[in-house]
Amino acid sequence: MSNLFFKNHGPFKLIEILKTLNLNYDIDYSNQSVSDIKDILTSNSNEITFFHSKKYKDIAKITKASFCITTESLKNDLPKTCYPLIVDNVLVATSKITAKFYPTAIYDDFDNTVKDIIETNFKDKVNYGKNVLIGHNVVIGSNCIIGHNTIIEKNVTIGNNCSIGSNTIIRNTQIKENVKILDCCTIGKHGFGFFPNNKRNLRYPHIGNVIIEDGCEIGCGSTIDRGSMSNTVIGKNTYLDNQIHVAHNVKIGENSIIAGQVGIAGSSILGNNVKIGGQAGISGHLIIGNNVEIGGGSGVIKSIPDNSKVMGYPAKNIKDFLRENK
Amino acid sequence: MSNLFFKNHGPFKLIEILKTLNLNYDIDYSNQSVSDIKDILTSNSNEITFFHSKKYKDIAKITKASFCITTESLKNDLPKTCYPLIVDNVLVATSKITAKFYPTAIYDDFDNTVKDIIETNFKDKVNYGKNVLIGHNVVIGSNCIIGHNTIIEKNVTIGNNCSIGSNTIIRNTQIKENVKILDCCTIGKHGFGFFPNNKRNLRYPHIGNVIIEDGCEIGCGSTIDRGSMSNTVIGKNTYLDNQIHVAHNVKIGENSIIAGQVGIAGSSILGNNVKIGGQAGISGHLIIGNNVEIGGGSGVIKSIPDNSKVMGYPAKNIKDFLRENK
Amino acid sequence: MSNLFFKNHGPFKLIEILKTLNLNYDIDYSNQSVSDIKDILTSNSNEITFFHSKKYKDIAKITKASFCITTESLKNDLPKTCYPLIVDNVLVATSKITAKFYPTAIYDDFDNTVKDIIETNFKDKVNYGKNVLIGHNVVIGSNCIIGHNTIIEKNVTIGNNCSIGSNTIIRNTQIKENVKILDCCTIGKHGFGFFPNNKRNLRYPHIGNVIIEDGCEIGCGSTIDRGSMSNTVIGKNTYLDNQIHVAHNVKIGENSIIAGQVGIAGSSILGNNVKIGGQAGISGHLIIGNNVEIGGGSGVIKSIPDNSKVMGYPAKNIKDFLRENK
Repeated sequence: MSNLFFKNHGPFKLIEILKTLNLNYDIDYSNQSVSDIKDILTSNSNEITFFHSKKYKDIAKITKASFCITTESLKNDLPKTCYPLIVDNVLVATSKITAKFYPTAIYDDFDNTVKDIIETNFKDKVNYGKNVLIGHNVVIGSNCIIGHNTIIEKNVTIGNNCSIGSNTIIRNTQIKENVKILDCCTIGKHGFGFFPNNKRNLRYPHIGNVIIEDGCEIGCGSTIDRGSMSNTVIGKNTYLDNQIHVAHNVKIGENSIIAGQVGIAGSSILGNNVKIGGQAGISGHLIIGNNVEIGGGSGVIKSIPDNSKVMGYPAKNIKDFLRENK
Repeated sequence: MSNLFFKNHGPFKLIEILKTLNLNYDIDYSNQSVSDIKDILTSNSNEITFFHSKKYKDIAKITKASFCITTESLKNDLPKTCYPLIVDNVLVATSKITAKFYPTAIYDDFDNTVKDIIETNFKDKVNYGKNVLIGHNVVIGSNCIIGHNTIIEKNVTIGNNCSIGSNTIIRNTQIKENVKILDCCTIGKHGFGFFPNNKRNLRYPHIGNVIIEDGCEIGCGSTIDRGSMSNTVIGKNTYLDNQIHVAHNVKIGENSIIAGQVGIAGSSILGNNVKIGGQAGISGHLIIGNNVEIGGGSGVIKSIPDNSKVMGYPAKNIKDFLRENK
Repeated sequence: MSNLFFKNHGPFKLIEILKTLNLNYDIDYSNQSVSDIKDILTSNSNEITFFHSKKYKDIAKITKASFCITTESLKNDLPKTCYPLIVDNVLVATSKITAKFYPTAIYDDFDNTVKDIIETNFKDKVNYGKNVLIGHNVVIGSNCIIGHNTIIEKNVTIGNNCSIGSNTIIRNTQIKENVKILDCCTIGKHGFGFFPNNKRNLRYPHIGNVIIEDGCEIGCGSTIDRGSMSNTVIGKNTYLDNQIHVAHNVKIGENSIIAGQVGIAGSSILGNNVKIGGQAGISGHLIIGNNVEIGGGSGVIKSIPDNSKVMGYPAKNIKDFLRENK
């Protein structure tokens, strides 16, 4: 699928990509066209991807990408259909190529394309408050409500029967049907992803979106960052309480219930029917199974299999936690 | 006391209530009038209440309500003056009857009754900033200050000498005298209370208010949800720091000090002179005594008697915690 | 250095200060002029300071202040060049004298000096959104961006090439160059500092600023309080994620990375190159060394030496924590 919100400035010839990376490969197909950059799971033929950690070895083996930015030591895990581009720092190189395809995805300054909703076609369609601003490339379904001072920045689609609160800011986000987003949320800003550098940190582009599926509710003061390469997803009929932070690339399943002040770090994937108590935290890059219950205040630092109940810091079987702490 | 902010659409005849619950009782007084729904502690004669957990057995025994939604196994704890209506799911049935009495308490969309303060009688009475909005059924005392972009939605009373910051949203809230509410707060929205349902969660009405007593201060970015059946209360001269979350039905006593990022889950009751360190969390439905001190970062999962000092996760005697963790 | 933002109403003769404190000293130099009040480290000749805890004994010994509010038991640690004013409660007395020099620093009501940016000289210089408000005593460098509904209240300087998001509120803050502040932040409000009092808590003045050095980024929904006597400082090229709380007087070094929902309590000092995982909390008045790494969810209650890696609650050596919790 092509990127919904960020304009792809490709395709580029492979030779141009090699130049950007300062690589001097003398290969037959340097005139071949590279159409897009995606993560290793979703990329296709004629696209480029990246592979930077053994953790993703099993996915790497079956990637459909034609080209992959990687290291000498990882390249042998790639299939023969995928040509490796060997670099010293995979993430920095990936960032450069991402910025080549999507130069606008690196900036998150305020959206100066917005107009007062009164000056747009939405004025007869939406039930809106005072001082509502609407940016470029926004679609809003029927029977929607938008509160005071709310800013629907560029690149947002809102389905039917949605209610957005007041003082909320949304960009780069797909909101499906029957969704409620309460007051003072910030949704769709870039994640906390950058290359640390002692002179000046280097921000990389975030070309993913936020997707909020049917029937979700997002509590007051919550922040949901958009993905870097893939999307951040809140599954169908999942409810988030107030002051929750969902970092970039996180995927939350369906019918989940997440209490106040929970934080979920980048790239973690949660199953369906997950229940999380207040103030719990989940580290990055974990897999939380279906039907998992996480007690309030827990700190989850390992993946959790389906149907588990955990609590504690670090989180463990809830029965063990409660028995040890009688 | 009648509900200050939500319009009671009753009284209803008992027979109408039985119909709503699909109950076919052939009883003498089915023509009797039921005037209101309240919790089991505060309900009176000719009112209906609910009783769903053995935890509330002692209060149930002395309820003054004339009718009570409950189960077969709990009904014998009710006094003879209280007629039991037996259902399978007490909370769902209670939600239906609450919605019958208070149909408007289920929606929390933005308030479209607001006007710019310049168009109201408050313009000569209040010291206000730019773009201040005032909803229906608002009362403001003398010598009050309201900052920029702040929205006083419907159903708010503000006493004398209060200062509200900028970018703050308030509804369904009684603010007494000499109260300061800082910037970016959201106060009086419904709590995180609903019936989970895999097709579509079912929101129940929140007919309680938020009450903020004399001399309180509420820090920036805090959220205080209104009660479901009873009120959420912040006691006299209690100070809350920034980014605090107070859930529905919570009652905090007087002269308490609560540091940044603390979260208090639904229906917990805190005494007077309570001190809570930063980022501590308190589970729901607990009783925290007077003069209790809770160390920063603690996770409180049991009730705490008066005059205790606790710390840890789960919280225990602070001396034990510090000795064990030397 | 004189106070950048708060007007000093001094100098006062010593005799006036003695009167304010109800002290009857019959001393030669009661006509001497006292020019300012500062903390014990930065105060100079002809200035007054305070000394209330043995913790600061080593700094007290070399203070340059001419006068010091202190207690009978602490006074002997002061050098002979510093004349002690003996009181029962050092902090209350200090508050009274601070309020004498800086009477405006005690109030944090909304800034009613603001104008729409369109009515200011910044309209041709800044790239701004809708409904941007600018207060008294604001300086903005070249090539700056300010988002919708943002309020730059009084006493703010912004260097070149800065980008401020939408719905953000800033006061009493120096922002250096190339700084990004995202949406919904509140920066520069007074800290959570007051004297608890059962009838009515007593707020003391906060005469410090917030200083955000070159190249910093501050995430959405974060709060940074200004200092009480010294400044709150975010060092060069330090990045803060979303929903972070930095309390008054905190100093964070350079090149540090602080993940979402972290809280740092008052007066703690962090070194350079510090990395803090999500939801970690740091107690007040601690010293965190250079190159320290603090795991997500940790609760730090003791100072940490340079180059340490810690995790847990309370935080300990990360290897010990992980081994004990296998």
